[in-house]
Amino acid sequence: MGIRLGDNQYGKAEVRLVHIDRDTDVHRIKDVNVTSQLRGELESVHTDGDNSTCLPTDTQKNTVYAKAREWGGVGAIEEFALRLARHFVDEHSYVHGARQEVHEYSWDRIETADGPHDHAFSRRGAETRTTVVNKDGAREWVVSGFEGLSVLKSTGSEFHGYPKTKYTTLPETTDRILATDVTARWRYVGVDHDFDAVYASVRALCLEAFARTHSLALQQSLYEMGRAVLEAHPEIAEIRFSMPNNHHFLVDLSPFDLDNPGEVFFAADRPYGKIEATVERDDAPDAGDAWKAVPGFV
Amino acid sequence: MGIRLGDNQYGKAEVRLVHIDRDTDVHRIKDVNVTSQLRGELESVHTDGDNSTCLPTDTQKNTVYAKAREWGGVGAIEEFALRLARHFVDEHSYVHGARQEVHEYSWDRIETADGPHDHAFSRRGAETRTTVVNKDGAREWVVSGFEGLSVLKSTGSEFHGYPKTKYTTLPETTDRILATDVTARWRYVGVDHDFDAVYASVRALCLEAFARTHSLALQQSLYEMGRAVLEAHPEIAEIRFSMPNNHHFLVDLSPFDLDNPGEVFFAADRPYGKIEATVERDDAPDAGDAWKAVPGFV
Amino acid sequence: MGIRLGDNQYGKAEVRLVHIDRDTDVHRIKDVNVTSQLRGELESVHTDGDNSTCLPTDTQKNTVYAKAREWGGVGAIEEFALRLARHFVDEHSYVHGARQEVHEYSWDRIETADGPHDHAFSRRGAETRTTVVNKDGAREWVVSGFEGLSVLKSTGSEFHGYPKTKYTTLPETTDRILATDVTARWRYVGVDHDFDAVYASVRALCLEAFARTHSLALQQSLYEMGRAVLEAHPEIAEIRFSMPNNHHFLVDLSPFDLDNPGEVFFAADRPYGKIEATVERDDAPDAGDAWKAVPGFV
Amino acid sequence: MGIRLGDNQYGKAEVRLVHIDRDTDVHRIKDVNVTSQLRGELESVHTDGDNSTCLPTDTQKNTVYAKAREWGGVGAIEEFALRLARHFVDEHSYVHGARQEVHEYSWDRIETADGPHDHAFSRRGAETRTTVVNKDGAREWVVSGFEGLSVLKSTGSEFHGYPKTKYTTLPETTDRILATDVTARWRYVGVDHDFDAVYASVRALCLEAFARTHSLALQQSLYEMGRAVLEAHPEIAEIRFSMPNNHHFLVDLSPFDLDNPGEVFFAADRPYGKIEATVERDDAPDAGDAWKAVPGFV
Repeated sequence: MGIRLGDNQYGKAEVRLVHIDRDTDVHRIKDVNVTSQLRGELESVHTDGDNSTCLPTDTQKNTVYAKAREWGGVGAIEEFALRLARHFVDEHSYVHGARQEVHEYSWDRIETADGPHDHAFSRRGAETRTTVVNKDGAREWVVSGFEGLSVLKSTGSEFHGYPKTKYTTLPETTDRILATDVTARWRYVGVDHDFDAVYASVRALCLEAFARTHSLALQQSLYEMGRAVLEAHPEIAEIRFSMPNNHHFLVDLSPFDLDNPGEVFFAADRPYGKIEATVERDDAPDAGDAWKAVPGFV
Repeated sequence: MGIRLGDNQYGKAEVRLVHIDRDTDVHRIKDVNVTSQLRGELESVHTDGDNSTCLPTDTQKNTVYAKAREWGGVGAIEEFALRLARHFVDEHSYVHGARQEVHEYSWDRIETADGPHDHAFSRRGAETRTTVVNKDGAREWVVSGFEGLSVLKSTGSEFHGYPKTKYTTLPETTDRILATDVTARWRYVGVDHDFDAVYASVRALCLEAFARTHSLALQQSLYEMGRAVLEAHPEIAEIRFSMPNNHHFLVDLSPFDLDNPGEVFFAADRPYGKIEATVERDDAPDAGDAWKAVPGFV
Repeated sequence: MGIRLGDNQYGKAEVRLVHIDRDTDVHRIKDVNVTSQLRGELESVHTDGDNSTCLPTDTQKNTVYAKAREWGGVGAIEEFALRLARHFVDEHSYVHGARQEVHEYSWDRIETADGPHDHAFSRRGAETRTTVVNKDGAREWVVSGFEGLSVLKSTGSEFHGYPKTKYTTLPETTDRILATDVTARWRYVGVDHDFDAVYASVRALCLEAFARTHSLALQQSLYEMGRAVLEAHPEIAEIRFSMPNNHHFLVDLSPFDLDNPGEVFFAADRPYGKIEATVERDDAPDAGDAWKAVPGFV
Repeated sequence: MGIRLGDNQYGKAEVRLVHIDRDTDVHRIKDVNVTSQLRGELESVHTDGDNSTCLPTDTQKNTVYAKAREWGGVGAIEEFALRLARHFVDEHSYVHGARQEVHEYSWDRIETADGPHDHAFSRRGAETRTTVVNKDGAREWVVSGFEGLSVLKSTGSEFHGYPKTKYTTLPETTDRILATDVTARWRYVGVDHDFDAVYASVRALCLEAFARTHSLALQQSLYEMGRAVLEAHPEIAEIRFSMPNNHHFLVDLSPFDLDNPGEVFFAADRPYGKIEATVERDDAPDAGDAWKAVPGFV
């Protein structure tokens, strides 16, 4: 019996980079959080502390900042992640693979009496745009997404027809609040796309599908969101959602001689439902290492 | 020497209430977080566990939900907090004072191809509207505010002319990023106002003053924000701000033979500057118990 | 009518300092989080951006690190905060007051087959020791405490005898789980004490009083904790507690033909009870500015 | 081209269960957080909102509470997760697989003058014990672990010999602070073990290996921890670690004419190193679906 190193990766997490484009007096801001991870000839680092093939995480951090200047900005986060991955894999013989994850926070121009301000901004909200680029040798995958998009329907949601067992107490309902925080991740076919345009479209399609679907189950809303995205975007092979069911319980006001016709709700914290599913094309190319990570530690 | 009970208050914190106004098919949503605290004849509760004058926190919670139904909704959070405070103090002889705090989260209608949706919403952002009502017998105070309003200027901010000491290393600058998360609290004169309108105005005035002020210190930006509010709103006696200075450090790219003309920044977490100040009228009525709380535990 | 600057303070928050005492091979670690705030001649900073009396927050940060070296370590956090406050107020004519807050995180030595390790440590838990020193000219106050001390009794807690109103639904109980996270703050008389010894004693007294008190209300447990501390420590003038009532609800298992004799509980998140009270000596010296802060922004 | 449902699972997350064993007056407490997820015939739920094969997440929650009573307590969290998985898969024809995740929080008895208290407890710390059981038809896998174990070495850590590139600025060091928060997950061979004993042993082995390893890289410390575990535990096939490198930077005090011989450090937040690796036996059985989850949403 022997003991050996298995799957591994290492890097610098959460490199907070803000880039100001000052080409004109109307500044543009890009606010991102970059996590760079590398794979390669790392066995002796682990077994002997021999760092001769270990590009320091500090160097990875420096690279993120330097490249933002060399390349004249960040651009679409997918492009930035791809270029970083190519730099790390192509320029260092001992680096065989890279995972570059970028989160982006959005800012709006502050509205003034004179119109949108040139260089003053306010944060748009809790929503974050994300991308993960995996590169293994010459092969590259792009998975983009968003998280923290909280949505709620105050009606148009039912839940009934489920199996009743010894442990069932939930009453069926034909009218409930449906609320969730959407996390979505979609896998691109290929790596050459107008990523900004696709992002805006996917986000809008998800919102509209959530709003329009008369929902018999949160799973159905999820599926309709995925279907809308895949029908509109042939460049997307699959889309995955993780959506909590943020329960809003109708408060029983009968002890106080009050009815409650769908008006007063308790917004609960825990437990919550948790719905995860993939919607995919039946002719999609194989996922390869698009979703590669050390399982259990994504 | 004797030991005795000093200042105290108790209640139910973070009662999460969502109210849906279904008067028409175009639903309106109100999403709030209520913390009810009471003061009164509570000595024997503490010294002997005699609860005969202790309105249970569970009852306070029930009251929040029941009143939302009885009153046909929440309305402006200031009005809701005032009515709750009056209910608790006026209807229970052993309750002499109340502190009612309400936070409100905002939702936008989801935009669809057919226009804004009737009953589907998305969360507007991280910003929270707040109010604290203090009532002591017949006297009442309203302090309103917001928190989580993140703003940033990419230029138009300087910092220099400060004292230099043995421990100074900071270089002076005539161009830096200025970023903060604004927490504001303003004290009203009286309790009869169009609170929704004032809130919208104060928020807009703060944003505009932050944007327009060419800033020589974050304190100056703060003061200009306060001044703009007080000049426009005679019904506000004072406004207090707590504003971190969220440092964005220009990254030194010279080791990589790159300049960095105000483009690439590291957004730091800790430590951060912390600026707290009050802007007030010199003829404002006394604050009384407007800010009353158990110090150290606000 | 005029507009003016009111109460204010500014400084550097959360300066994360780790000090290693290497006097012997058996290292000692001190892990603290320092927030320095100053008060003084700051009007023109706010009104005109004139920083000539504004000791930069960056300098305050540098001072924290430099003094930890000059003074050969941190020592008791109360001593460190006092010395910092004296440095800032005594060495700068334009600084009239200081608030220095220090949080301390505890580490244990890792146990090995050879005994406790010389220089390897593991974090002790979520509990944090705290102090706030306020200094105004020559006057000084010390308020110490802890937070994040979570305790639970699985029996020995009752709740009944409370007023019943229209909005009461809570059943009385003679046996419930009582759970809370204790935040305590105590005000010292004078500034010369063996702060480490008092801290250890107060913490132990609070734990023991919580454990031993057969509780008819969380307020009663709180009061017994305070009484035990004041009886044992004449150097403490008052002690304040903020304690959530972390509800554990007995799950109704009757729909499944199961009884539940105090065994299976749901640990709820929100809402929670919130109990705040002061226990004090009737002959305690006046609090002065011991609790001074900008209200609403502690 | 068609669109279809891909991998999916659903359930109830974070069911907070506290069980009190009252068999004797010396109570025992078990405090867990259960996330139940199921897989099976779920296509029509997604495509048509047909819930006839969808065991409600509410029923899953009820089951967790009821089974804790039926089974007379929770026992080792691995046993509880296995029994829950078997219940869900074996008793419902439309459920084909289950993922049951349990987190456990530890409590100590409060020490009093009379010894450890019978029914009063304090939380032990931030560390959490975890398990994930995956069951697919008759096959079962157990992956156990812990998270939030924070450790630090104040010396005995070096970092040098790494590749130097255009983007290198990090100086080599032969003495630095090494600090991390250990997250570990280990996969068992088979499902019949003394899980409590193994957990205690693995935790102690990891702590001791971290303490004893003179570290040339955090990866080396990680590997030594894994090796110690695998050498002692033939029932463990592999162990995976995710360990941030929590940077502690030596503060440059030279501007203040002070040296800093490894005494005064700045504990940074972000960015941080991130080291992830698996240590495994070369003759370990295949992992099967032990790590199964919807990738990207673990």
